[in-house]
Amino acid sequence: MVKTIKGIAASDGIATAEAYLLVQPDLSFTKKSISDADAEISRLKDAISTSDDELTKIRDTAKESLGEEEAQVFDAHKMILADPEFTGAVENEVSNSNVNAEQALHDVSENFISIFEGMTDNPYMQERAADVRDVTKRVMAHLLGVELPNPALIDHKVVIVAHDLTPSDTAQLNKKYVKGFVTDIGGRTAHSAIMARSLELPAVVGTDTITKDVKAGDTVIVDGLNGAAIVDPSDDDIKEYEQKAKEFAEEKAEWEKLKDEPSVTADGKHFDIAANIDTPDDLQGVIDNGAEGVGLYRTEFLYMQSDSLPTEENQFKAYKKVLEGMKGKPVVVRTMDIGGDKHLPYLPLPEEMNPFLGYRAIRISLDRQEIFRTQLRALLRASAFGNLRIMFPMIGTLQEFRDAKKVFEEEKAKLVKDGVEVSDSIQLGMMMEVPAAAVLADQFAKEVDFFSIGTNDLIQYTMAADRGNEHVSYLYQPYNPSILRLIKHVIESAHKEGKWAGMCGEAAGDNTMLPLLLSMGLDEYSMSATSVLRVRSLMKKLSTKDLATLADRAVNESITNEDNKKLVEEYLNK
Amino acid sequence: MVKTIKGIAASDGIATAEAYLLVQPDLSFTKKSISDADAEISRLKDAISTSDDELTKIRDTAKESLGEEEAQVFDAHKMILADPEFTGAVENEVSNSNVNAEQALHDVSENFISIFEGMTDNPYMQERAADVRDVTKRVMAHLLGVELPNPALIDHKVVIVAHDLTPSDTAQLNKKYVKGFVTDIGGRTAHSAIMARSLELPAVVGTDTITKDVKAGDTVIVDGLNGAAIVDPSDDDIKEYEQKAKEFAEEKAEWEKLKDEPSVTADGKHFDIAANIDTPDDLQGVIDNGAEGVGLYRTEFLYMQSDSLPTEENQFKAYKKVLEGMKGKPVVVRTMDIGGDKHLPYLPLPEEMNPFLGYRAIRISLDRQEIFRTQLRALLRASAFGNLRIMFPMIGTLQEFRDAKKVFEEEKAKLVKDGVEVSDSIQLGMMMEVPAAAVLADQFAKEVDFFSIGTNDLIQYTMAADRGNEHVSYLYQPYNPSILRLIKHVIESAHKEGKWAGMCGEAAGDNTMLPLLLSMGLDEYSMSATSVLRVRSLMKKLSTKDLATLADRAVNESITNEDNKKLVEEYLNK
Repeated sequence: MVKTIKGIAASDGIATAEAYLLVQPDLSFTKKSISDADAEISRLKDAISTSDDELTKIRDTAKESLGEEEAQVFDAHKMILADPEFTGAVENEVSNSNVNAEQALHDVSENFISIFEGMTDNPYMQERAADVRDVTKRVMAHLLGVELPNPALIDHKVVIVAHDLTPSDTAQLNKKYVKGFVTDIGGRTAHSAIMARSLELPAVVGTDTITKDVKAGDTVIVDGLNGAAIVDPSDDDIKEYEQKAKEFAEEKAEWEKLKDEPSVTADGKHFDIAANIDTPDDLQGVIDNGAEGVGLYRTEFLYMQSDSLPTEENQFKAYKKVLEGMKGKPVVVRTMDIGGDKHLPYLPLPEEMNPFLGYRAIRISLDRQEIFRTQLRALLRASAFGNLRIMFPMIGTLQEFRDAKKVFEEEKAKLVKDGVEVSDSIQLGMMMEVPAAAVLADQFAKEVDFFSIGTNDLIQYTMAADRGNEHVSYLYQPYNPSILRLIKHVIESAHKEGKWAGMCGEAAGDNTMLPLLLSMGLDEYSMSATSVLRVRSLMKKLSTKDLATLADRAVNESITNEDNKKLVEEYLNK
Repeated sequence: MVKTIKGIAASDGIATAEAYLLVQPDLSFTKKSISDADAEISRLKDAISTSDDELTKIRDTAKESLGEEEAQVFDAHKMILADPEFTGAVENEVSNSNVNAEQALHDVSENFISIFEGMTDNPYMQERAADVRDVTKRVMAHLLGVELPNPALIDHKVVIVAHDLTPSDTAQLNKKYVKGFVTDIGGRTAHSAIMARSLELPAVVGTDTITKDVKAGDTVIVDGLNGAAIVDPSDDDIKEYEQKAKEFAEEKAEWEKLKDEPSVTADGKHFDIAANIDTPDDLQGVIDNGAEGVGLYRTEFLYMQSDSLPTEENQFKAYKKVLEGMKGKPVVVRTMDIGGDKHLPYLPLPEEMNPFLGYRAIRISLDRQEIFRTQLRALLRASAFGNLRIMFPMIGTLQEFRDAKKVFEEEKAKLVKDGVEVSDSIQLGMMMEVPAAAVLADQFAKEVDFFSIGTNDLIQYTMAADRGNEHVSYLYQPYNPSILRLIKHVIESAHKEGKWAGMCGEAAGDNTMLPLLLSMGLDEYSMSATSVLRVRSLMKKLSTKDLATLADRAVNESITNEDNKKLVEEYLNK
């Protein structure tokens, strides 16, 4: 029976393949007293040995398909299974306490985990806690006779069906065989959605029930254009979607033609469409998609992919590579945005009840100035090799911006004094993502060179709703008049002082948002490289003259998020 | 040597007494291999027995001075020490693993804690984890030969000196002997600060270093008027502060005279000064301090002080008592504000990474409508006994307000149909604490009867800074022009639609804020009952005519929080 499951369109495209359920099985058990400890220990040994065999197979497959680094985690798991301190403790627990192997495994592993996690001054051992947790799951599954998903072993074309996809799940996927994602939870800004767009895979998220609606092996069509998953499609359905996929491919081919064209509206107004990058490796995608600059270089990846704070020299090389690669086109580098949900194993941060409202981004940089100064020196030295713009994340008060700018000026003066070549036209701007700053944008505009609106955080704070929390996901409302008012105020404030305003959040590449932003006169649109040509194509069809009053109506007449969706739709269909 | 330590004035008044250091000692230890297990077990048994004796003494004292309920927690601790499953496991660990008693105690207790905490469907057992943690600390202290603070045993006048004060710390304090608080961290909205004001004890918070500056037994003067602690004062200092305390007492006596007077400015304009309450027991304080109404009745305490959801009948009785007690003066009841940092043992909420940005307040009420409907029915029935106003917490979108109002109208219609007497003039309003709502206040004003601005949350979200997080406490900026702009917009929006606006956050009772709020025309000021007469007295000295342009200057000319502090100071000294 065909079932159509609605969700949120998170990444363009259409794919049809067999469903692969990436779902954690139920590993609950009951504590039992046992009389034959030897029999129980032998059952345990069997489960450990089966797990070890499985890990060998996964490790080998992963090494081949994903590479050495991704495979190493499985070696770590094998080492734990080979460690008599661990397995011996479980065996002892079985015989000393006369409990079943499940209970003994659980108790011993919890004990190890809590000891490892308690070693707050030893990040290496803290990471081992996650390994113990993972390997315990595997042995537990074999004890209980249930099957764990092993995504690293996928060897044919599949659509991944999951409750949610974490970064560690996606690291284990063989991209060659994965044709699309469908998940229960998440929105357009979820990790899985961003990952799907960067891999150019169709994805539908937030279906609520897909993991219950699909069995492993069912055929699934992912319609990432309309936000739907079709389970068990008829032959006619498959044909219909093949046609749609073909049309989409043709549309994409049309977009391709715009690669070397400027981004202009139907009435000839030019705006900048730029791309977001995480590392210099992403540069090729930026160039291939004809972006007019880098609107957001997230430098925290330099810190996250390292075992210690990156040196000034290593940072300098990365920044120089990007600046040179962009051949004089503007590159907006955001200084380190650590904290919140991003942590560095070698830089312990305080435990916080609400990390998104905590010690993060510029708040850390201003407090730990040695880290900040190293980054600014690397950036200043790289500035001689291209068109560098620097922005500070999470600025909430003008005092913070002034403090950050002062540190920048001090490091610049030192380098100049030492005879180092440094560009004299580096623009200094800020992310607009803290509501306090957006409300006061007119005052900020007098002191900054530019704003870049970070919609993900701006929406999260303005609506007081964690964008990763499924229980309040209905409050992620980019078109809510309150959000649009703040965005409009930021853009107008910039223009009044002769400055420019951009946007580097997810909303910058959103089809419904684009007419609103053009109507407000936003100058720069920075997005996933894979969205650049789609947006350039849509921009070509819109005229700023027709759009003149749209923004005013959106912020003054509309009352809800839905009102504004309708308003834009009506305009586009007019 | 006299030392003066500066901090934040958190509660008025002056006190001089001996310091009592409520500071957790260092309980770290090193793992050791032991050869004589019997000797180690005997050392353990001694520590357990000393701990048990101590707990008996604390339990008896607590029962006498604090009451049966507060004493029960110590019985729970004694039960753990008497449980062979726990103590036996520690002894076994010593002999099986040949480790010192400290290590064995740590390992076993971590194991128990993680098992208890893992019982997510059993809140009773989850709470036992905290007991195991506490009792382990006590035994560990005796093993290490260090002293734990035992606040329940205080039997003479003291000033409490602590890093921070938690609700469980303050529950153990004998209020008869505690004359004031000084803490390292926290601001005016910290638990310790609110507690101090409600007990009318002088308090200074956020000194950074007081726990290092003071030894147990040192004489300390707490100057809650100027935010300073004087350690080891000279006789002259003590005399000087006795004089200041006398003057403050005289000032308070002057305030007392205003008890039955209305709240008016120097130019005869009347505003309402109301009080915040947690339970019907707080009503006497409201009446004694001559408040003109209850501006915030925090109903979540009805839920928090209960073992299960309070019945409609129990809620009805509480609401009726407050409404009758206020004899026709307005009572603003806020519907349940659970979630964030407030949890109910019998209502498990999802684990959240950022609970302040999560499933809380009206978001829960609209999702769990059976709980919400019971509360609204109880309120509707009580409405016949006084002047009831209802407000919803954490409203972020107009849709949420409409949904909540619809549920209210449905329950009202049912009661009316059943012939139950219900007031026909209940005002329905909302807390203004989500930035999105404040930005869109003009639209909300068309549909609500009133706004009550919750500054604590409004500031926390607008600045994107958890108000309980010491690492970002510098961002708690009530006078920041961005915050004042939002407040001004809320007040003006209400007035434009003929509605009223109040404030029930900490800022409503703040001396620096009052001139700004009067200048904006805020209608109602709701605060701790103990602040009412102070604010009424200050209001009498201010003229709205002189203040006319103050708010405009604060939101248009000022750039920082500091600018506005200065602006108000200059005005007051003019």
